[in-house]
Amino acid sequence: MTVTKWNVRAGAYYDSVVLMQLQRGLLELSGVVDAGVVMATQANRDLLAANHLLPDSVTANPDDLLIVVKANDEDFAIEAIDKVDELLTRRKSSTVSEDFRPHSLSAAVKQLPEANWVLISVPGRYAAGVAREALDLGKHVFLYSDNVSLEEEIALKKTAREKGLLVMGPDCGTAIINGVGLGFANRVRRGAIGIVGASGTGTQAVTAQIHNLGSGISHAIGTGGRDLKSDVGAITANQALDLLARDPDTKVIALISKPPSPEVATQLISSAQQTGKPVVIYFIGYPPPARQIGNLHFAISLSEAAEIAVKIGDRRLETVEKSPVSSLYLRGLFSGGTLAYETLLGLQASLSPIYSNGPITPNQNLKDPLKSEAHTIIDLGDEFFMVGRLHPMIDNDLRIRRMKQEASDLEVGMILFDVVLGEGSHLDPAGELALAIKEIREKRIGELDFVAIVIGTDEDPQNIQSQIDQLKEAGITVFRTATEAVEYISLKFSRHNSNQFPPVNLEQLKQPLAAINVGLESFYDSLISQGAQAVHVEWRPPAGGNEKMAALLAKMKNKKEN
Amino acid sequence: MTVTKWNVRAGAYYDSVVLMQLQRGLLELSGVVDAGVVMATQANRDLLAANHLLPDSVTANPDDLLIVVKANDEDFAIEAIDKVDELLTRRKSSTVSEDFRPHSLSAAVKQLPEANWVLISVPGRYAAGVAREALDLGKHVFLYSDNVSLEEEIALKKTAREKGLLVMGPDCGTAIINGVGLGFANRVRRGAIGIVGASGTGTQAVTAQIHNLGSGISHAIGTGGRDLKSDVGAITANQALDLLARDPDTKVIALISKPPSPEVATQLISSAQQTGKPVVIYFIGYPPPARQIGNLHFAISLSEAAEIAVKIGDRRLETVEKSPVSSLYLRGLFSGGTLAYETLLGLQASLSPIYSNGPITPNQNLKDPLKSEAHTIIDLGDEFFMVGRLHPMIDNDLRIRRMKQEASDLEVGMILFDVVLGEGSHLDPAGELALAIKEIREKRIGELDFVAIVIGTDEDPQNIQSQIDQLKEAGITVFRTATEAVEYISLKFSRHNSNQFPPVNLEQLKQPLAAINVGLESFYDSLISQGAQAVHVEWRPPAGGNEKMAALLAKMKNKKEN
Repeated sequence: MTVTKWNVRAGAYYDSVVLMQLQRGLLELSGVVDAGVVMATQANRDLLAANHLLPDSVTANPDDLLIVVKANDEDFAIEAIDKVDELLTRRKSSTVSEDFRPHSLSAAVKQLPEANWVLISVPGRYAAGVAREALDLGKHVFLYSDNVSLEEEIALKKTAREKGLLVMGPDCGTAIINGVGLGFANRVRRGAIGIVGASGTGTQAVTAQIHNLGSGISHAIGTGGRDLKSDVGAITANQALDLLARDPDTKVIALISKPPSPEVATQLISSAQQTGKPVVIYFIGYPPPARQIGNLHFAISLSEAAEIAVKIGDRRLETVEKSPVSSLYLRGLFSGGTLAYETLLGLQASLSPIYSNGPITPNQNLKDPLKSEAHTIIDLGDEFFMVGRLHPMIDNDLRIRRMKQEASDLEVGMILFDVVLGEGSHLDPAGELALAIKEIREKRIGELDFVAIVIGTDEDPQNIQSQIDQLKEAGITVFRTATEAVEYISLKFSRHNSNQFPPVNLEQLKQPLAAINVGLESFYDSLISQGAQAVHVEWRPPAGGNEKMAALLAKMKNKKEN
Repeated sequence: MTVTKWNVRAGAYYDSVVLMQLQRGLLELSGVVDAGVVMATQANRDLLAANHLLPDSVTANPDDLLIVVKANDEDFAIEAIDKVDELLTRRKSSTVSEDFRPHSLSAAVKQLPEANWVLISVPGRYAAGVAREALDLGKHVFLYSDNVSLEEEIALKKTAREKGLLVMGPDCGTAIINGVGLGFANRVRRGAIGIVGASGTGTQAVTAQIHNLGSGISHAIGTGGRDLKSDVGAITANQALDLLARDPDTKVIALISKPPSPEVATQLISSAQQTGKPVVIYFIGYPPPARQIGNLHFAISLSEAAEIAVKIGDRRLETVEKSPVSSLYLRGLFSGGTLAYETLLGLQASLSPIYSNGPITPNQNLKDPLKSEAHTIIDLGDEFFMVGRLHPMIDNDLRIRRMKQEASDLEVGMILFDVVLGEGSHLDPAGELALAIKEIREKRIGELDFVAIVIGTDEDPQNIQSQIDQLKEAGITVFRTATEAVEYISLKFSRHNSNQFPPVNLEQLKQPLAAINVGLESFYDSLISQGAQAVHVEWRPPAGGNEKMAALLAKMKNKKEN
């Protein structure tokens, strides 16, 4: 029969390495069967319970340290609990003397003034404060800490952007700056592929595989997982894309993230287009709009993203020809529902806002199917239109009327439509449509492009070649698949993002890495072992983690400043 | 100044070809500027309004025929409206005499008893009735009509399944049976690729491109767009997959659909695996779980689906090796959030139900992160676990405890985990984990597989080869990417669907096509022009479309039968 004893230490701060070592120390004691050393959050209490390490009698607050020991008998248990203080002290004396280390970020900066980077891995509730201090000192921030609020993240990133500084994180697991890994990072060859990663292990998997395939990394810039949410608006990802676009050592960029919010996706894709470099995009779980759109390559897995980046990096680069970009709207008038859907699927990545009577996401829902808004894709074969009416593959009347309606809107710059040939369809759809389009063009003031997707075979009753010829003679651009049309249109309508913020300093990125580490000592050790210059701050939370005392100190400090 | 006149005809049925021809006839009259001939639904009234063809004075019910003429003056307008009856009659006399044509489906069947297929394109409100009649006569149904209710669709398909009959549709645009196109269909070469298509123009685009790439189609079976919704449960798609699996002329199958509901996707994917033939799957907008999982190939566009099918069709077929399938559960315990997410993304296609603390869809949400259910993927680096605790890449304690917990559940057949090497990570994760796994194995009753995804490079401080060796020595299956692990696991856990319904008759599929057409005459013309045997039914709705009269007739008929 085992005996469980516990002990609570209120309001004191211990870093997580200390807690792990205390737990291991307890487990090594004779007679101890199991032990738990945790901050007493609900999650951690539940974890203890799952391990049969939570006596009913325990009372503790989330900020308290809870120590539980299960031993073979009462004496062993008591003995173990009594050893806690000794074990905590033992840990301290085993490390480098603290006297040689700065106790504040500002002191560390004096010690290593060339350090442009600050790594922060203190507990979440203190992390934003340390990050702000680093920004005030003009340093880039690698913010490993999680449990930082969204509001704090936005505020930090906005401040950083104004100063031309990067905030990688919060919850940023990995980065590789000028050959040195920050946080968790695989050792990889240097090379021509730059990474913008909103996902830590995603970046690790891609950089590792690029190395394993024989290529290398210029820089891998982390953004933290929430950067591509609409609230944050991809501030860091945009800075990173711009930075790598300006970096002559980066030939290919890979952009890795969980699915961004739709408007962020569109904006980032257009930023990626503007880099003028090949960009491999993998938005994990976001249906790829195509394999390739201009300089953008879309992957469907981490390993494929790595493979494509390596393949492109090995190629001799072609300059991307830029076509003039339209600020007008697209209207797609389809007879085929699936063609409409696939086209919308492809275009939603680059055209925003886009609406449809067959929306993919609820925000694409077109309120009135009879009235287009912004970019619109209409399925004219939808049930809504079909009561007592022939399908638009048989009868062109509905579509021609709608074409005229769209053409009368001077904000419309392109009308896209499909021509589906074959059995059952109209015997000369191209003839009727081309005639109508000629009439529309004669009346129209200002530019209006027409693009057609022709589906059919050389055996179809309509004679596909003559159908295509009629369309081309009417000045209509013809494609044979939706995919090709999507690529063409995406490039025509891609937006130009202007950047009114100071650029991130490229020279700092290319200097030998020097960094200040605040938090997990193992990250400092890792910097040193990689040959980087680094200083570790012997950080302690204000008032030793006692929240009430910290509040009092802050109050006094404010008084003094006023 | 133009003048607009209108006329309403209540409660009479006209097919949509007649309406189109009437409208065209009116437009040809002198002095007529525009004309509209529509069933007076709200949508159609709005359409007239958009074309400035709806006078304020118009009153009409949705079942009424509304005729509107806009002319240069009052006389022209009145003259045109007066011509309506004459135009309606002219249309009738121009077609083949109706006397030689059957007026009912049963009469048509007597005229062409070898017809196994009935094409139905009557208005939606009559379509289910005609389809039921066809099923009662033992015929397969191609149901082009839309505006058929979901309840009617389910009832029809359940009846059909019991009889080993197909109901393609409602709203089925296309099919190719034994070389003959039904509805809208491109003329394509015969060949070894069979199609199951829940999307009409999707099927047309794919079949046309397969032809254009030099290959051909065995059969293309349509299902209607709603077949893959959970309410219908892919009844027709499952029948079609089974039918093409048994067809010796079909070497490759392509399955095309808008995104199915998640449980239907899983079920269909497992049916596709069971065909034992290569199946190209394109669920439009559904993120592909991988490029290939066993005999399944995933495409990201219609044109890519065609390309892959052609490429595979040209290959010499390898037999798919079938590994024994586990009925137990998978538990994935990840240190890397993105690796967990990508693995879930891949596995959700084949494993159902599957839960996670980082769900992709809301129904995957794991209620309690500490308790796995069914198949579960856990990100142990999630903020929830991280208060006062080192990341699982540094400290293996949390993961080892969770492994023990999972192993004590005898419904668990496989534990998957990642090992992320590199700077910052634990210096011997494989050593600690392999040791724990050996202990777990010794205690465990029954089969328990362990699978690891190792992310790292040969330059990482841990020595990747020795890490992999330690895992392998402990009997753990090791992969270097999530993609490879997903493929391996998908095949291990794929379900076996048993089919307790009578199979669809393969011989009927392979007989020269003979069909009965009810509805659009152009579909009959198309059958004849393709060399098929066909009979067109001179169909009229009960009581000439007069709903009250029809209800009365039905009542009398019921009385007689009672």
